[in-house]
Amino acid sequence: MRYWNSWGTDTTEKPTITEGARQFVRENLGEGRILPQATLEEVCAKVPASRLPDHELICKDVEHRVRHARGQSLPDWVAMKSGVFDRFPDGVAYPETPDQIRELMDLAREKDFVIIPYGGGTSVAGHINPPALDKPVLTLSLEHMNRLVSLDTESQVATFGPGTPGPMVEAQLARSGYTLGHFPQSFELSTIGGWVASRSSGQQSLRYGRIEQLFAGGRLETFEGTLDIPTMPASSAGPDIREMVLGSEGRMGVLSEVKVRVSPTPEKEKFFVVYFPNWRDGFNCTKTAVQSRIPLSMLRLSNATETFTQLKLAGHEDLIAMLEKYLRFRNVDEGKCMLTFGITGTRAQYRAAHRQIRRLVRHYNGVGMTIGDRIGRIWEKGRFRFPYLRENLWQEGYAVDTLETSVDWSRVDNTLNAMEDALRGALADQGENVHVFTHLSHFYAQGSSIYTTYLFRCGETYEETVANWRKLKSAASQAVVAHGGTISHQHGVGRDHAPYLSAEKGELGMAAISTLCQRFDPEGRLNPGALLEA
Amino acid sequence: MRYWNSWGTDTTEKPTITEGARQFVRENLGEGRILPQATLEEVCAKVPASRLPDHELICKDVEHRVRHARGQSLPDWVAMKSGVFDRFPDGVAYPETPDQIRELMDLAREKDFVIIPYGGGTSVAGHINPPALDKPVLTLSLEHMNRLVSLDTESQVATFGPGTPGPMVEAQLARSGYTLGHFPQSFELSTIGGWVASRSSGQQSLRYGRIEQLFAGGRLETFEGTLDIPTMPASSAGPDIREMVLGSEGRMGVLSEVKVRVSPTPEKEKFFVVYFPNWRDGFNCTKTAVQSRIPLSMLRLSNATETFTQLKLAGHEDLIAMLEKYLRFRNVDEGKCMLTFGITGTRAQYRAAHRQIRRLVRHYNGVGMTIGDRIGRIWEKGRFRFPYLRENLWQEGYAVDTLETSVDWSRVDNTLNAMEDALRGALADQGENVHVFTHLSHFYAQGSSIYTTYLFRCGETYEETVANWRKLKSAASQAVVAHGGTISHQHGVGRDHAPYLSAEKGELGMAAISTLCQRFDPEGRLNPGALLEA
Repeated sequence: MRYWNSWGTDTTEKPTITEGARQFVRENLGEGRILPQATLEEVCAKVPASRLPDHELICKDVEHRVRHARGQSLPDWVAMKSGVFDRFPDGVAYPETPDQIRELMDLAREKDFVIIPYGGGTSVAGHINPPALDKPVLTLSLEHMNRLVSLDTESQVATFGPGTPGPMVEAQLARSGYTLGHFPQSFELSTIGGWVASRSSGQQSLRYGRIEQLFAGGRLETFEGTLDIPTMPASSAGPDIREMVLGSEGRMGVLSEVKVRVSPTPEKEKFFVVYFPNWRDGFNCTKTAVQSRIPLSMLRLSNATETFTQLKLAGHEDLIAMLEKYLRFRNVDEGKCMLTFGITGTRAQYRAAHRQIRRLVRHYNGVGMTIGDRIGRIWEKGRFRFPYLRENLWQEGYAVDTLETSVDWSRVDNTLNAMEDALRGALADQGENVHVFTHLSHFYAQGSSIYTTYLFRCGETYEETVANWRKLKSAASQAVVAHGGTISHQHGVGRDHAPYLSAEKGELGMAAISTLCQRFDPEGRLNPGALLEA
Repeated sequence: MRYWNSWGTDTTEKPTITEGARQFVRENLGEGRILPQATLEEVCAKVPASRLPDHELICKDVEHRVRHARGQSLPDWVAMKSGVFDRFPDGVAYPETPDQIRELMDLAREKDFVIIPYGGGTSVAGHINPPALDKPVLTLSLEHMNRLVSLDTESQVATFGPGTPGPMVEAQLARSGYTLGHFPQSFELSTIGGWVASRSSGQQSLRYGRIEQLFAGGRLETFEGTLDIPTMPASSAGPDIREMVLGSEGRMGVLSEVKVRVSPTPEKEKFFVVYFPNWRDGFNCTKTAVQSRIPLSMLRLSNATETFTQLKLAGHEDLIAMLEKYLRFRNVDEGKCMLTFGITGTRAQYRAAHRQIRRLVRHYNGVGMTIGDRIGRIWEKGRFRFPYLRENLWQEGYAVDTLETSVDWSRVDNTLNAMEDALRGALADQGENVHVFTHLSHFYAQGSSIYTTYLFRCGETYEETVANWRKLKSAASQAVVAHGGTISHQHGVGRDHAPYLSAEKGELGMAAISTLCQRFDPEGRLNPGALLEA
């Protein structure tokens, strides 16, 4: 069963937090502040009467409405933990066919309500939160449309229901020997339609591409009719309609079918972890690897604080002690930086890539290649476990959040430092420390994403906690924008990033996007407030 | 000097046509019909008075107007050869700065004229032809904005003037050890701005990507202001503005600066030609190569008729005789298909790719790998020479044109056959043969482009020639659309393909594109009639 007020499901093996980790956090941030948590019953009792009409496709049950009221942003957590939701959707629908989606949209026009398309509810930017409107709000959950509809093995194109979550995408493809290869951190819960709507990127985008490269076409139900996007490998015939749907965050229409480019399950895949004596060596190795097109499937370079923190929080204390001893022996100690990478392909391709990266790691003074696959296996096993740690920390009285951007290589260092500095100093006036660390991932010849995690102590109250988060988020977002970074490389815009979007799109770019949304949804009934502020 | 009524410049080494080739064409199509050609003087004498106002940036010289009146489509050739142009631009401007572009756009609004942005004038789909309008037409040639403005070697991003032609792009980058790697057939004359505006693709797109992947940002001057597109390696923040500009064919604005992703000059590059005993083997080898991600930089598979025709037309008669003898000895004879491929990269990557493709070619009964690089060098030397052959054939009384699409793998065979059949039969009612052959190139895991060339005899008159071309073009275009192919994989839409665009975009897709164009150019002053019929 999915948790109603936390990440994940109760059937998943979760990480634990060791005494050493607990002590590390306490030393850095002070004694945690454990705030009282509301129960599901208490929250359900607060849900007001629904303003939606009765309809066989609309469920007005209060628990359903609570469970679809919020995503996974930090303000969402504060709402779920405190029980102060402000708003709930007036109902939830679970259509099973494109026709039912259309039926609900027709009803929305007739009965004057708005619709929030809902995939896995994993947004960390407020994509699916009910807006403050006089009109009733229907959350349209696509979770029942979760099947592999067809698979063209010759063209390697698979057609899915839009609400298919990551594990069901992979399991249904695996039966025929295929993979999509899209593994965002939210993989366990997020859906293929959500990936398209929010321009998602997965851990192995270096091989498989971002969702922009994987999305081949499909159907979008709009208020002006159905937009059918046929599959074609490429076209020079005018602007690409796919690219207008990608990132439209439910403002243009509801995806009722998603076609994606799949690949045969690779013959061989392994992940490795190696260590560099300092940031500069790791940075140069990674940049060179991607710019010289070494065919890796993932790369992730942690800065010294992230490396240090991960080793503290990882568990596996005996193994880590042994590793640290070995690294010291190889003169990789204080300031060391961890690089995680994956090699995927045919056996011949695997061998070729392994040879190339091994040589490069050595050239840049990296060590640990020989034992690197053992730690790589630990990473692989826990690759979707990180979000669960948020709950562990919360229970100790600490909040954790992440933010990210991407910039050209010539701006990576300055942007990273500015983001970290902004976060570290944001609560100084209250005498509160913020523990900040960063990795680069999602590498491109042109630049890299920058992914920063920050831990801070909960406030005395929920209000103070969310107020502190706002200070942190706003300071870091301003730093991102000031350095020419995108307000999001992989989380999307939602409501939390909307105020910063115009910095990268410009006035005319914003006008273009807004014109498109209006063209497909002239009455503004679809997810108002997401992507565009108005 | 650029030819005013043919492809290319008079300083380029051109291919010659052998007696054997001449005979081959004559046997297939009958005696050529050589039509009388107009001279430049005759055409200049027909140019009407300009309707444009006097302005220091506007040149009204008749020869300039003749030289910018048409592109390189077959109807354009008929116009240029016959001297019957119908329309000329009322003037040509050669702005040198973004400000001068804006000045001319302001003037267009003030004096009520329309503007056709003009790159290299290499369109084969009627992109830059003056429309039939009451308003004066200014052709805005960007040829003076042809410089590398800046190069960020760390991020591998280069900023160019929009009118920089292929050879100047490469030469200016080569000085710093970089390449763009974009080599369309029109490379010698087409420009970087034109590539973006028409969503171009180059011969080595397998390595470097299409222009969509290379275009990193820049400036578009629109009637609503300047659209600045900042460079970022990737973003999930809403629909991608770059993708709206790509393929906008001058309808949204005039590119005044183009930023592209460049690569270091590769350590090693070679091209190879090998032969398969039949289409099926060649098809399977090529499809497997691309779907299993063998890191090649180009692939081009000719069908049996193209292979046969190329060997007939290639010149190098002794070498070809020797080759054919060798192939017969290896049981590769009638029905054989030629595969051209390129390997590009570091030495280690070259070796790895060479090993992988060699094994695959052998597996699919391909032969000639050991001597393949010698013929590959001939291909490389002549890679931009093919368009010159059109003039040779024209002088013999024959017309040649090409058309292309892309489709998913499961549709390639049927679409290819339908296109060829449509062309072969299109002039049957007149008892005219059409010589048709095809290659696949621009490969994707999902499918392939299909590039078909057709030769036919000129008509008794120019009118008959262009009428026959219309029958051919329309038959093939209908076949493309009926099989779900894009109306263009690399040539763009222009005016010739505009009637077929809605087949792939759908009514709503067309509405989206049209809405965007109107948002940026509310009065319809930019290239009216291109891309969208209205």
